[in-house]
Amino acid sequence: MNIAATRPIPQVTTGPLPASRKIHIEGERHGDIRVPMREVALHPTSGEPPVVLYDSSGPYTDPSAGIDIKSGLPRLRERWIAARGDADIYAGRHVLPEDNGFASGERLVPEFPVRNTPRRANNGKAVTQLAYARAGIITPEMEFVAIRENLGRKAAKEAMTRDGESFGAHIPGHVTPEFVRQEIAAGRAIIPANINHPESEPMIIGRNFLVKINANIGNSAVTSSMEEEVEKMVWAIRWGADTVMDLSTGRNIHNIREWIIRNSPVPIGTVPLYQALEKVGGIAEDLTWELYRDTLIEQAEQGVDYFTIHAGVRLHYIPLTVNRVTGIVSRGGSIMAKWCLHHHRESFLYEHFEEICDICRAYDVSFSLGDGLRPGSIADANDAAQFAELETLGELTEIAWAKDCQVMIEGPGHVPMHKIKENMDKQLKTCGEAPFYTLGPLTTDIAPGYDHITSGIGAAMIGWFGTAMLCYVTPKEHLGLPDRNDVKVGVITYKIAAHAADLAKGHPAAQVRDDALSRARFEFRWEDQFNLSLDPDTARSMHDETLPKEAHKVAHFCSMCGPKFCSMRISHDLRAEAQKEGLEAMAAKYRQGGDLYMPVADAAETQPGE
Amino acid sequence: MNIAATRPIPQVTTGPLPASRKIHIEGERHGDIRVPMREVALHPTSGEPPVVLYDSSGPYTDPSAGIDIKSGLPRLRERWIAARGDADIYAGRHVLPEDNGFASGERLVPEFPVRNTPRRANNGKAVTQLAYARAGIITPEMEFVAIRENLGRKAAKEAMTRDGESFGAHIPGHVTPEFVRQEIAAGRAIIPANINHPESEPMIIGRNFLVKINANIGNSAVTSSMEEEVEKMVWAIRWGADTVMDLSTGRNIHNIREWIIRNSPVPIGTVPLYQALEKVGGIAEDLTWELYRDTLIEQAEQGVDYFTIHAGVRLHYIPLTVNRVTGIVSRGGSIMAKWCLHHHRESFLYEHFEEICDICRAYDVSFSLGDGLRPGSIADANDAAQFAELETLGELTEIAWAKDCQVMIEGPGHVPMHKIKENMDKQLKTCGEAPFYTLGPLTTDIAPGYDHITSGIGAAMIGWFGTAMLCYVTPKEHLGLPDRNDVKVGVITYKIAAHAADLAKGHPAAQVRDDALSRARFEFRWEDQFNLSLDPDTARSMHDETLPKEAHKVAHFCSMCGPKFCSMRISHDLRAEAQKEGLEAMAAKYRQGGDLYMPVADAAETQPGE
Repeated sequence: MNIAATRPIPQVTTGPLPASRKIHIEGERHGDIRVPMREVALHPTSGEPPVVLYDSSGPYTDPSAGIDIKSGLPRLRERWIAARGDADIYAGRHVLPEDNGFASGERLVPEFPVRNTPRRANNGKAVTQLAYARAGIITPEMEFVAIRENLGRKAAKEAMTRDGESFGAHIPGHVTPEFVRQEIAAGRAIIPANINHPESEPMIIGRNFLVKINANIGNSAVTSSMEEEVEKMVWAIRWGADTVMDLSTGRNIHNIREWIIRNSPVPIGTVPLYQALEKVGGIAEDLTWELYRDTLIEQAEQGVDYFTIHAGVRLHYIPLTVNRVTGIVSRGGSIMAKWCLHHHRESFLYEHFEEICDICRAYDVSFSLGDGLRPGSIADANDAAQFAELETLGELTEIAWAKDCQVMIEGPGHVPMHKIKENMDKQLKTCGEAPFYTLGPLTTDIAPGYDHITSGIGAAMIGWFGTAMLCYVTPKEHLGLPDRNDVKVGVITYKIAAHAADLAKGHPAAQVRDDALSRARFEFRWEDQFNLSLDPDTARSMHDETLPKEAHKVAHFCSMCGPKFCSMRISHDLRAEAQKEGLEAMAAKYRQGGDLYMPVADAAETQPGE
Repeated sequence: MNIAATRPIPQVTTGPLPASRKIHIEGERHGDIRVPMREVALHPTSGEPPVVLYDSSGPYTDPSAGIDIKSGLPRLRERWIAARGDADIYAGRHVLPEDNGFASGERLVPEFPVRNTPRRANNGKAVTQLAYARAGIITPEMEFVAIRENLGRKAAKEAMTRDGESFGAHIPGHVTPEFVRQEIAAGRAIIPANINHPESEPMIIGRNFLVKINANIGNSAVTSSMEEEVEKMVWAIRWGADTVMDLSTGRNIHNIREWIIRNSPVPIGTVPLYQALEKVGGIAEDLTWELYRDTLIEQAEQGVDYFTIHAGVRLHYIPLTVNRVTGIVSRGGSIMAKWCLHHHRESFLYEHFEEICDICRAYDVSFSLGDGLRPGSIADANDAAQFAELETLGELTEIAWAKDCQVMIEGPGHVPMHKIKENMDKQLKTCGEAPFYTLGPLTTDIAPGYDHITSGIGAAMIGWFGTAMLCYVTPKEHLGLPDRNDVKVGVITYKIAAHAADLAKGHPAAQVRDDALSRARFEFRWEDQFNLSLDPDTARSMHDETLPKEAHKVAHFCSMCGPKFCSMRISHDLRAEAQKEGLEAMAAKYRQGGDLYMPVADAAETQPGE
């Protein structure tokens, strides 16, 4: 049990991204709010201020933070939670051998060294952000996300370009804590923030905020250790993952999850059914409500911020999938389908949904209502099974809201481009504008090995149409387990999709980064161009493959055209002339024509080629 | 000059893709037409016929073809061209030292060993596919592409799913030679087919056909040899490039291009201005119409199939770019802008456009009217400069059509998602539905190193909206020269975009491949899944990273979930039950409810966690 004490201190990736420093913006309402941002310094010749970026990476990129994954992160929300006085510490559930798949001895991943006792709502109260929002309370979490969403911009001080097509989303020029409260109260946004995960830096998921992305991690049966899983999480958030789902299977699920949560500054989501199935040796039909319920409590006490619950897979929907090309492709959906079939009865998730709500409201675990019948191929997109389940998810949303629980809705999957918008429109209508959280969707089935791209296309589009969070797909989807590089490629691809969506929706501050990078490109500030990019390391190394010398970092050309051909350099000559002559004079001169248009000597009408 | 004779035979990549064989479908009107297709065999257990795919790879993937790049490919169109009797062989232009940038001695790339004398239209006649189409002639090229576009499907024999949103495109259920003729006659499609490139296998670019992709190659000043450039072309078409642009700069442009064309089964495009600029030592202001005209003839005689001509960069548009974030980013556009400014006169491309048409009609070189003022950043998208040039391209299209020249129109560039459709709609309207050929567009500027993805998103969308050909962008865009792997990644990404567009447009045969692959996935036919994918090698190697053994290729599970969790296996159980009971009975039983819904024992209302 104390292996951790004798091992060397586990290493995770730390340190700032190039030219970046961590800054903190303080709250106004709540004194102890310090919202982290990443400030990218530009070259002095730019004459431009630093660019402030959203920063999901937590203390790991802050050189002044001491990182020790055996201690976990600072519990920054603990005072806020305690101050509300509605959730006391209690003994909590006892960890059982089956929680770790009966692993023992050397096979058992060490327990996390610090044991925290959990909190739970007193007397059946709701301790959810939704309950507070409905009661008119602006929590520190709400102020935190308001500041965070503004990316450093001040109210009404800066003229923001509003250029986009938002399809009914209403993104304010400046996000106020009161706006956040209203959006949460309306169910249009959630702050996944389990009271037992006080290490988390609050973030918001909703159509009227920046589009977020999720990265999946999870141990495999063979090789994973707690260091590796913590590092996967740290690595994913370093590149921009806003939440992380732990989809572990096999042994040691409980202990590894504890290591992850204690070290995670982002919300952690799970599919509790996966662990429940491990507890019954992988036999779906042996699942029971009691065992599942116990698993929910186990995970809620650890601090899981959102649960994927496949309660929309109803018994009588299952036959709708039989003639599909790819049947049921959701693991949770297929487990529940198998259970329903075996017992010939309605899903226990559906029948006990109100009790699940009671658990969620006691810890503020958000719902991510799973789409167990999502299409797994282009052929099955938008079919009767998928949309029948969506209707049920809409009903369940109402039930959860009645219990003051926060809800988002999971979406597909595999969908050709012309059927994507129908998904978004139907979800908004059916689920009362609860946030949509989609996996891709993949826009074709024919590119295994490149499904980050097939799905990045769909993700950008559905994000534009209104999806609040995009679940990443890595290049290994359908083929194998993602490694470190796959995780990074998946995250960067989804940051592209989310940002492209923010731009197209007309987010008032999204284009600031594009413009800063493009000015750097135009002015040959190569270092600034690398530093402002989503992946500075890759941008720099690709540049260096052709022009490796330091001198080339200030060269007024690049390897594509070389010094003679550079279009941008020619543009600078143009601009210089315009500045000399005055733009208006220049334009007028060109428009006049006249003498400027010297007549061409009529070329003799010769046969081409002679 | 005869270095080639003493060197070992240059090697290029040959051999079929996995499980694939080259088949040929014969013409009905024209006896000597043999249209190549790729047939992918499926595992016998599938009970399915082979899948027939479009095949741009030429004889290189045909084991029965003898490949010797010193001889060049068979001149399959030569008889068709000669039979028309309207273009005689003539001596042709003499190769000048400046054609190869004055390279000499060891620095001079050897001449292609076989010297072909060019053809040219007799007596100023038009020898273009457009002229024939207007005259009611169905050429062998037209029949060839009709067969090619059908992907092996027969008229009215197979029920095709028609499911899509085509935005006004009219893709027939079955493509006939007469349909091809009509589309070409209307200017809505082109077959780039220089009479001096008889090695090419005809292909068509138009909104009512499959979406095509182009890959750019080109030698750099430092290292390239003719073997390398031929191999780049062979490599690009192996993965699906439909045309290749040779954007070489520096020395040896003439000789390398000859090696490429003689070995290319796909149309070759160029930007003649690049070579012209080399001939004047890179000094844009020293360019002259006479030198440019001579370069056009040089390239037309070699067999270049389409020319990018930046004739829309007019003098009085240049000031419109001065206040842009990234000025002029097109190389051709900036060269012409510099020339115009220096001489303070209208572009010689614009003024001599009719003479350019006379050259193009004499060889059937298609126009690719260049967008020299395309936006190079999100900030500059859809601005006055871009759309002013587009208007001019519309005027030039009319002039070219009046000369019986085939035309397509180049498009941007960097465009946020919400401004993409405006580009397509404006292009269709302004340019009389001439095919659109876009570079991306990139949907955000913030991801150098991943611009195949930022642009793949835009490419898929604009392809759906009606763009006929998508010019690829590699991961190295903005950073360096693409290597072999970058070329492949760029091509595969654009095949994804083009195919996603075909699906969304409702192309009647596009989904055949998705469905076959998805069925293979559902039935655990791993080999079939790899073989049907755009990149079988990568799919296989990713799978093998986790499950390397041959036995796993038939495993009824994969590494993501393992044998216990497999959702697809559970779906098979469902299907088996349905087949046993009968689907209707099963569905009815589930819908009835009644006894099936055993009431749950009311769970005691206990406090969660206890």
